[in-house]
Amino acid sequence: MAQKPSIPKGTRDFSPAEMTNRNYIFDTIKSIFRLYGFQPIETPAMENLSTLMGKYGEEGDKLLFKILNSGDFAAAPSDQELLERNSIRLTNKISEKGLRYDLTVPFARFVVQYRNDISFPFKRYQIQPVWRADRPQKGRYREFYQCDVDIVGSDSLLNEMELVQIVDQVFSKLKINTVVKINNRKILAGIAETIGEKDRIVDITVAIDKLDKIGLEKVNEELLEKGIPQDAVDKLQPILHLSGSVSEKLNQLELAIGQSGIGAKGIAEVRTLFAYLDTLELTTEVELDLTLARGLNYYTGAIFEVKAKDVAMGSICGGGRYDDLTGIFGMPNVSGVGISFGADRIYDVLTQLELFPAATADSTKLMFVNFGAAEEAFCLPVLAAVRKAGINAEIFPDKSKMGKQMTWANNKKIPFVAIVGENEMAQGKINLKNMLSGEQQLVTAQELIKILSA
Amino acid sequence: MAQKPSIPKGTRDFSPAEMTNRNYIFDTIKSIFRLYGFQPIETPAMENLSTLMGKYGEEGDKLLFKILNSGDFAAAPSDQELLERNSIRLTNKISEKGLRYDLTVPFARFVVQYRNDISFPFKRYQIQPVWRADRPQKGRYREFYQCDVDIVGSDSLLNEMELVQIVDQVFSKLKINTVVKINNRKILAGIAETIGEKDRIVDITVAIDKLDKIGLEKVNEELLEKGIPQDAVDKLQPILHLSGSVSEKLNQLELAIGQSGIGAKGIAEVRTLFAYLDTLELTTEVELDLTLARGLNYYTGAIFEVKAKDVAMGSICGGGRYDDLTGIFGMPNVSGVGISFGADRIYDVLTQLELFPAATADSTKLMFVNFGAAEEAFCLPVLAAVRKAGINAEIFPDKSKMGKQMTWANNKKIPFVAIVGENEMAQGKINLKNMLSGEQQLVTAQELIKILSA
Repeated sequence: MAQKPSIPKGTRDFSPAEMTNRNYIFDTIKSIFRLYGFQPIETPAMENLSTLMGKYGEEGDKLLFKILNSGDFAAAPSDQELLERNSIRLTNKISEKGLRYDLTVPFARFVVQYRNDISFPFKRYQIQPVWRADRPQKGRYREFYQCDVDIVGSDSLLNEMELVQIVDQVFSKLKINTVVKINNRKILAGIAETIGEKDRIVDITVAIDKLDKIGLEKVNEELLEKGIPQDAVDKLQPILHLSGSVSEKLNQLELAIGQSGIGAKGIAEVRTLFAYLDTLELTTEVELDLTLARGLNYYTGAIFEVKAKDVAMGSICGGGRYDDLTGIFGMPNVSGVGISFGADRIYDVLTQLELFPAATADSTKLMFVNFGAAEEAFCLPVLAAVRKAGINAEIFPDKSKMGKQMTWANNKKIPFVAIVGENEMAQGKINLKNMLSGEQQLVTAQELIKILSA
Repeated sequence: MAQKPSIPKGTRDFSPAEMTNRNYIFDTIKSIFRLYGFQPIETPAMENLSTLMGKYGEEGDKLLFKILNSGDFAAAPSDQELLERNSIRLTNKISEKGLRYDLTVPFARFVVQYRNDISFPFKRYQIQPVWRADRPQKGRYREFYQCDVDIVGSDSLLNEMELVQIVDQVFSKLKINTVVKINNRKILAGIAETIGEKDRIVDITVAIDKLDKIGLEKVNEELLEKGIPQDAVDKLQPILHLSGSVSEKLNQLELAIGQSGIGAKGIAEVRTLFAYLDTLELTTEVELDLTLARGLNYYTGAIFEVKAKDVAMGSICGGGRYDDLTGIFGMPNVSGVGISFGADRIYDVLTQLELFPAATADSTKLMFVNFGAAEEAFCLPVLAAVRKAGINAEIFPDKSKMGKQMTWANNKKIPFVAIVGENEMAQGKINLKNMLSGEQQLVTAQELIKILSA
């Protein structure tokens, strides 16, 4: 007896039911991406290690899945290199390729490689799996899909506005109530500059973030403990007291950090973006959140984060503007902005809130029971007509017991079953059973198509 | 200056234009799969090497891409194992996972692993990339998509019929004229049995295949050279002279090999399948082709191959029935039948015959030229209304030169451009330019939507 088959830890199989739900998410997202003029690209699962290494920090390098060179790889290292057993150095000798770790670096590589063919601004989306040799745990996988949309080669804040619109439309369509939090790296830089602590952006942002939880006094204590001088903490106080609407907050910020060039620029960007957003009819809430600090090491302008309101879950979408994505591959000064949808988290939200639709494009709508050759001959032309009308339908392929066939339809969540026996054939009609209500009705082929098309 | 980035040989990036065409193929195929009640599954890119090794022959084992174990892999082998430099043995010590080589073995693994959850017959399709460390050459890649549709757990020949229907509908929709060639492994086995050469199925089939090219005499010579005895070659003669319609050929075959149990079974299967096909309105040609010998080592019943008629190209689709897919994982006697669409070849056929549509679901239909803040403010609500009508549209994000914006629209093959300057704003109208004809017309927002929805 062969061993029970399994898959590598941290990876997943997706059943038809799961795929149907996943496709519902991806198809929804893609349809909105397209509505806004974004087009798909795909890159290979394997990239040269020279493309990937050094882009995700030392820890990231370790989390890359490396592909063993084909053929006689063991011939390459010297005896000494082999016996040294230094896995990192040995990897360089026996592996040249790795699985992509995210879609950002391959996208940057793509933009640089095809810079002469691309018409900038370049609007692309990309939905593909990525692989990380992370320790698997609940909600963290070694293979998972990323779903990125970016525009590179344009400074216009219209792009930020359209990304918020995309977020709004995607989650409206998915029926998830969200809040979009917006920050701007330049404002954070302006705050740090104003209080004379340029390099402490992160510490300051983390402290601001705790304001609601631990109160002003404790925040100030923490800042001092972290080595921010008393006068800097003093200067920070007005910013810790921001209140009111977005425009009121921006006015207060202007007073506090308007002297800083970069701070003023950040305030202007946020003002413009919110002015754009004010003209739109958004379903989502949008708020200015100065504590938003994701991706501070690469975002240079807007920072976005989206949270679902009716469920406790981390962010389900996020992104921002970066001014030097392609610099690592020798093409500096190409500004871009993008966001990434967290498909697995969105899946969990839709599951928890029971928002997956009962039927999608993947579902079968009608099954014909198979009673044997004569009934089959009657049913097949009707089945063909149903399909011609664009309705997903099938006939049970074997003349099995009725109970087995009905159970099969039930398991596949097929909402209608056509039962044709001798009586029905004699009348030239079909007994159509609604699997949810149990209701049955005798109909002609045309009537059947009409009911199913409704 | 960083090195010019590149991708591993044998792999490909897909640009938006290529993706649009590829999605057109995949979306067409998927929509037909669904119409027939097949549902998607996905399996991980990485499988345990224990799942993959030994399933594709010794050569196949070498062509598997193996993943280096994470962490300190170099600690595992002994000094002796390292210095032996036997790459195959060393692989076992430092690699446990490989990239999938096809979709068949992962599907078999899936069926066995979830046998208790699956409602048989199980109808699934799967469209995912596979990886092979083959020597790259024209038309052969190290990463390419397979597109498989199978039904397992049913012996019914209705399944064979439906697969032919699927092929017919897919290629009708793609506007490719095809011929579907059908054979049956049992007939070939019956021929071999009848002439007393059970183990020479392949040699005999290859010889029959050459009949048209080299003539009967040479075929007979070749058979004798290959060691088939004279009396066996004599017995084969009636089969080499088959002529007429499918049913006439089957009658002649019946006379020739009807005494062989397996041969008679094969003839009966083909008769039933063609009787089914006769009731259908197929666009494709269907023929019985006894020379069809693909997959002889695993197909046990029907064998299919599809060729495009208007272009010289290998088969663009193929498949057959197998009686023991899951036996390798300890679940014997599960019969299945399936076909696989060759996406890359179909792409080449559509390219050669210029059959790709000018616009697909991925295309943008309208671009608004951007003349600056005031014009933008006029255009954005119109753009929102256009999108609300479900039309893919965008506004050029920057206030660039008109020429640059028009070139961009042209490169992106956007068929309509909306030009709104001071004049148009004064009239509350949009100047709509047809990029193909060059024709311009002044329209209201509603008229514009009506034109684009047509």
